[in-house]
Amino acid sequence: MKSLVIVAHGSRRQASNDEVRELSSQIEAITGQKFQKVKAAFLELAEPSIPDGIQHCIDEGAKEVIVFPYFLSAGRHVIEDIPAEVEIARKSNPGINIEIVPYLGSMDRIVDLIATQTTSG
Amino acid sequence: MKSLVIVAHGSRRQASNDEVRELSSQIEAITGQKFQKVKAAFLELAEPSIPDGIQHCIDEGAKEVIVFPYFLSAGRHVIEDIPAEVEIARKSNPGINIEIVPYLGSMDRIVDLIATQTTSG
Repeated sequence: MKSLVIVAHGSRRQASNDEVRELSSQIEAITGQKFQKVKAAFLELAEPSIPDGIQHCIDEGAKEVIVFPYFLSAGRHVIEDIPAEVEIARKSNPGINIEIVPYLGSMDRIVDLIATQTTSG
Repeated sequence: MKSLVIVAHGSRRQASNDEVRELSSQIEAITGQKFQKVKAAFLELAEPSIPDGIQHCIDEGAKEVIVFPYFLSAGRHVIEDIPAEVEIARKSNPGINIEIVPYLGSMDRIVDLIATQTTSG
């Protein structure tokens, strides 16, 4: 069983955190059987933390967790902070495969997405 | 003639700003005739500013400028700061149509993009 954790920065503005939670629900709805669960987690300022979000998935039966950084650039958060938080979850869960995939801003397809969106209409 | 300005927050880390400039070049390459120019601009910490980026497009002949907020959530920057900066450009350029389109995080297709990316492989 595989789960996905969408990691956002977290904001003092609750509506921003809820946007990420809503995004996670939408992704869970369309990925169907691929992921048992799609969970939002936050680096700071909102709950759950990254280790807690991962742990939640594992407690519900995940044997593999994909961590997706919902970030636009490869700053310190993506390069250092998220891997450090994920490492905490790995140490608590030997035998579970926890993998960080490339962050949002690095996806080739984001170029197509923006091109399509800004040229339609 | 229509141009596109991709507005990012801006970072002290030059590589992050360059990521946005590179993204703009890639979008310019694939949108072809749709935009005469695709230009990166920054809310703070990097150049050009939003009014300067828009002005650059107008000086090169744009009669219409689309402003795309490269932001993930509808925080103060998207709701207040970017519109205020765009207003400066509008006041300097009566007769030019300058339009702000929905920010990146609000696009429906971002859900599909993440779903595809995290389930492949």
